[in-house]
Amino acid sequence: MSPGKPIKCIAAVAYEAGKPLTVEEITVDAPKEHEVRIKVEYTAVCHTDAYTLSGMDPEGAFPSILGHEGAGIVESVGDKVTNVKPGDHVIALYTAECKECKFCTSNKTNLCSSVRATQGKGVMPDGTSRFHNAKGEKLLHFMGCSTFSQYTVVADVSVVAVTPEAPLEKICLLGCGVTTGYGAAVKTADVQKGDTVAVFGAGTVGLSVVQGAKARGCSKIIVVDINNQKKQWAQDFGATDFVNPKTDLKEGQSIVDKLVEITDGGCDFTFDCTGNTSVMRDALEACHKGWGQSIIIGVAAAGQEISTRPFQLVTGRVWKGSAFGGIKGRSDMDGLISDYRDGKLKVDEFVTHERPFTDINAAFEDLHHGDCLRTVLDLSK
Amino acid sequence: MSPGKPIKCIAAVAYEAGKPLTVEEITVDAPKEHEVRIKVEYTAVCHTDAYTLSGMDPEGAFPSILGHEGAGIVESVGDKVTNVKPGDHVIALYTAECKECKFCTSNKTNLCSSVRATQGKGVMPDGTSRFHNAKGEKLLHFMGCSTFSQYTVVADVSVVAVTPEAPLEKICLLGCGVTTGYGAAVKTADVQKGDTVAVFGAGTVGLSVVQGAKARGCSKIIVVDINNQKKQWAQDFGATDFVNPKTDLKEGQSIVDKLVEITDGGCDFTFDCTGNTSVMRDALEACHKGWGQSIIIGVAAAGQEISTRPFQLVTGRVWKGSAFGGIKGRSDMDGLISDYRDGKLKVDEFVTHERPFTDINAAFEDLHHGDCLRTVLDLSK
Ligand SMILES: NC(=O)c1ccc[n+]([C@@H]2O[C@H](COP(=O)([O-])OP(=O)(O)OC[C@H]3O[C@@H](n4cnc5c(N)ncnc54)[C@H](O)[C@@H]3O)[C@@H](O)[C@H]2O)c1
Ligand SMILES: NC(=O)c1ccc[n+]([C@@H]2O[C@H](COP(=O)([O-])OP(=O)(O)OC[C@H]3O[C@@H](n4cnc5c(N)ncnc54)[C@H](O)[C@@H]3O)[C@@H](O)[C@H]2O)c1
Ligand SMILES: [Zn+2]
Ligand SMILES: [Zn+2]
Ligand SMILES: [Zn+2]
Ligand SMILES: [Zn+2]
Repeated sequence: MSPGKPIKCIAAVAYEAGKPLTVEEITVDAPKEHEVRIKVEYTAVCHTDAYTLSGMDPEGAFPSILGHEGAGIVESVGDKVTNVKPGDHVIALYTAECKECKFCTSNKTNLCSSVRATQGKGVMPDGTSRFHNAKGEKLLHFMGCSTFSQYTVVADVSVVAVTPEAPLEKICLLGCGVTTGYGAAVKTADVQKGDTVAVFGAGTVGLSVVQGAKARGCSKIIVVDINNQKKQWAQDFGATDFVNPKTDLKEGQSIVDKLVEITDGGCDFTFDCTGNTSVMRDALEACHKGWGQSIIIGVAAAGQEISTRPFQLVTGRVWKGSAFGGIKGRSDMDGLISDYRDGKLKVDEFVTHERPFTDINAAFEDLHHGDCLRTVLDLSK
Repeated sequence: MSPGKPIKCIAAVAYEAGKPLTVEEITVDAPKEHEVRIKVEYTAVCHTDAYTLSGMDPEGAFPSILGHEGAGIVESVGDKVTNVKPGDHVIALYTAECKECKFCTSNKTNLCSSVRATQGKGVMPDGTSRFHNAKGEKLLHFMGCSTFSQYTVVADVSVVAVTPEAPLEKICLLGCGVTTGYGAAVKTADVQKGDTVAVFGAGTVGLSVVQGAKARGCSKIIVVDINNQKKQWAQDFGATDFVNPKTDLKEGQSIVDKLVEITDGGCDFTFDCTGNTSVMRDALEACHKGWGQSIIIGVAAAGQEISTRPFQLVTGRVWKGSAFGGIKGRSDMDGLISDYRDGKLKVDEFVTHERPFTDINAAFEDLHHGDCLRTVLDLSK
């Protein structure tokens, strides 16, 4: 432990869009006021990391340290930090929770505004970075987390302590995908017993929506995916039906027709977990007239828009979205960990691949394979 | 009274798209089982009538008897009608309420399905019409109401009795515009004390949204209209601000920017009461991040679509719509009439023009003038 001192450690640096990450030694400065330095133990790779690295995100900036689905142990804290202390097991939060801003004090949203502006610019709230490479070059932060480094610094509002009894190599997934899907079902949509649900896209996010729907006793949980490899997983996580729009539709039948048929009029809730804007439209239009709600979770490529006829809404369908599952990271994480430890929320099952941190570029490749839900990287290796 | 017999009377027949209505004698058959024959006393002309007459509605069918904002007195009833009796003062309901279907038994919607299929085809639930002209030609029904006739026949689920103490020449407006706007605010959106609201379009519908927002104690009620003649009315009905996007914006400022500025971040609720799909987009994007809801009330031209970036929804805005203000016509009408009689709901103020029924084509012209909210036609003249 070196409180107050810079730490040298290994990180995977994104120097340029479309290029592999560079695994090298960097320096991580000490946390300033209201900042926390974390020894990252495990991190997963999520689509947002890949999207930014690809260069498709116009707001992506380089050089930077990506990664936002990570867990570790607090190494040291700056002045005025009261919510965590050295030694605490923690999860980094890309959706901060300050408990004071107009968003945090509203019970309608989890989109804290406290560090949003600087987080979007890849810097700490004081406008500077805590990372630099051997040449002394400044490296940007990412999503307020930067978990692709053995040590990272985050704002105190961007970290939550969790029980040390929960395995960090699994609960790192609660930093993004699992929480996003599960929360979208039980918090944003607040699905109820007996509801009919369709989930488009059976990745970690979609399968976690399935878990939420199952936990609530939904009567039909239909998974829609263009990859038949997802069928078994869909069933394992609680789906009652699986439809592959490429192979399971009758001549002239659309996926909307099919879902309306299966549910006798349309779904009570649908979820887009693909990021494809034409799927988002299908998801809305597969909702039941009068009350069906469609929740967009997937992140669309820059510039893409969603469309529909306004009549779809005038006749009672509701279009909404969900970020981080509507979960307030500091207030709600304990509950998720309890659900996990009680066996109500599957997390371990999403870890299909494990790799040493130095193989991080292979983990980005894993994302493209249908047999991968999440690759967890061990930062000690 | 001629129960059981056809009645000859004057009606305004829409023979062809884009042509004026023909005022002539027609025959109205007796009501069959579960049907009610109404002596229509007063009717207003609404945009949906004009839209259908224009031929722009691809589902509009001719020859037909338009009109759906009307009130009158029950002349006779067919077998098995229990909800109204001859002599009852009634309002015709284009949104039926059977109290039995899956929609009526849900508390989430007012979109009864009982007569929807046949209503859409311009016939009574048994598949036939009760209207024919002097040549014996069948005339179609419209929106389950057809109030542009001195006598009409409607399904029993499409009519509600009201206290005879409420003036029919005013409460006919509760058959569409006033109820639509007021209900959208107090029922669909359920706006609360202190909320900030923007209403796009200050016609009868928009001004009725304003009334609902005022009744609930909203803190800001901003009316947006491109016609400055609407400013005074906006104020009279309870608006706190009026913005004309054509004249009241700074260089380079959009109406969205302006609303975000006035409300310090965006509106809690916005309403489209114009039917313009680009206004619908502005209305959504002027909502506050995290919780703002936009309600589409306006009816767009056929084929028009709404669009936005999905990010708008992922960051917490909600897009919904409202038909007939979410009001269940038979269950909720009494409450509206009480609000009207208690002075809480303005109705009389919308009647800017009164004409004899035979001047109905002039009433369609009135619609195009900024000084007209509603023209009420007296069917006895
Ligand atoms: N809103 C948020 O807070 C948030 C958080 C995390 C992830 N996300 C987004 O959620 C989405 C899902 O993430 P993930 O990790 O589960 O991704 P993933 O790639 O593992 O899963 C996506 C699934 O969608 C399927 N799919 C692709 N196109 C399809 C189509 N046209 N129809 C049906 N299925 C289709 C794929 O086969 C795959 O199984 C991504 O867009 C991600 O960026 C959003
Ligand atoms: N959903 C329903 O159940 C329902 C019921 C009745 C009416 N409607 C629809 O509601 C809408 C309003 O009806 P109304 O009777 O009040 O109509 P109206 O024509 O009297 O009022 C429309 C107002 O919108 C204003 N406007 C037009 N373009 C605008 C723009 N770009 N920006 C700002 N303001 C603009 C006009 O100046 C006018 O004041 C219509 O589309 C009608 O078809 C819907
Ligand atoms: Zn993620
Ligand atoms: Zn906050
Ligand atoms: Zn109308
Ligand atoms: Zn019904």
